[in-house]
Amino acid sequence: MRWKDINTQTCSIARSITVFGDKWTMLILREIFLKQRRFSDIQKKLGISKHRLSDRLNHLIEHEVLYKKEYDSAHHRFEYRLTEKGVDLYPVIIAITQWGDKWESDEDGVPVEHFHDGCGEHAKPVFSCSVCNETMHARNTTVKPGPGLLKKIERGEAPDIDLTPYEQKPLEK
Amino acid sequence: MRWKDINTQTCSIARSITVFGDKWTMLILREIFLKQRRFSDIQKKLGISKHRLSDRLNHLIEHEVLYKKEYDSAHHRFEYRLTEKGVDLYPVIIAITQWGDKWESDEDGVPVEHFHDGCGEHAKPVFSCSVCNETMHARNTTVKPGPGLLKKIERGEAPDIDLTPYEQKPLEK
Repeated sequence: MRWKDINTQTCSIARSITVFGDKWTMLILREIFLKQRRFSDIQKKLGISKHRLSDRLNHLIEHEVLYKKEYDSAHHRFEYRLTEKGVDLYPVIIAITQWGDKWESDEDGVPVEHFHDGCGEHAKPVFSCSVCNETMHARNTTVKPGPGLLKKIERGEAPDIDLTPYEQKPLEK
Repeated sequence: MRWKDINTQTCSIARSITVFGDKWTMLILREIFLKQRRFSDIQKKLGISKHRLSDRLNHLIEHEVLYKKEYDSAHHRFEYRLTEKGVDLYPVIIAITQWGDKWESDEDGVPVEHFHDGCGEHAKPVFSCSVCNETMHARNTTVKPGPGLLKKIERGEAPDIDLTPYEQKPLEK
């Protein structure tokens, strides 16, 4: 399979990484979440070439993750803002950050810390079940085919994701 | 900045994506989380070249995300298993999947669904504050410099992450 065909897969991971699964894109999103919204600021922070930055920003606009907002009409200057679809990438950023904090930190400790405004505490966000609130992780979660995969099978199309080995062998406790 | 210098940044995102922030790597990890653990199975599922798959698997072994486990000693056959560091990538997989489910699904609906074994319910895991259990998202979370960044500043080194604009302009409510 060629990479350009990946986003046709019946898979939310494949479809998502077609949008933002590029190394530079993740760092650009980091900067925008940290309120660096102007082309020249992002370019300076990341030391990325103008061509590459422009390419990645346009891709994110095309996929409605970012939009351009004029901040100086006299000089037609724009900044890059997150759409709702973009703001919704926050859990991805948090999940990646937490993994890096745990497994890739050096002896100095974690680079940044997250505080929950509601209780004011330094928090390490955890994934909880939306039904019962208990922590969810690889060993207490089961994946089952959803409507997207089932309808494909009903229509006689070959499913791209094969859950058979998963269903046969749940992850060891 | 060249990509090879990115993992020296004081940033858990930069360090993490050096390990797994490659498009094919994410799909390989998806397959392994779905229990496709053998080279030929993964290769067949993804339609990826042997050279590319071998390269990505070796990179993940080098970074201790995967390890090789012999399943057929007579023929010296191995499968690729997740280490604890690898299993810990589950929240990243979940966060990416959920975003794709919400924003990139087609009219058929979501490809797969996640069930929490504890309560048996179809759950959409949400990020909760580890202290008070409330849902955490971009608009109720504040980022502050952690020890990794503060020690760098104390030693007179230039911080790679600039939180100033973030602190000046919290995300609009």
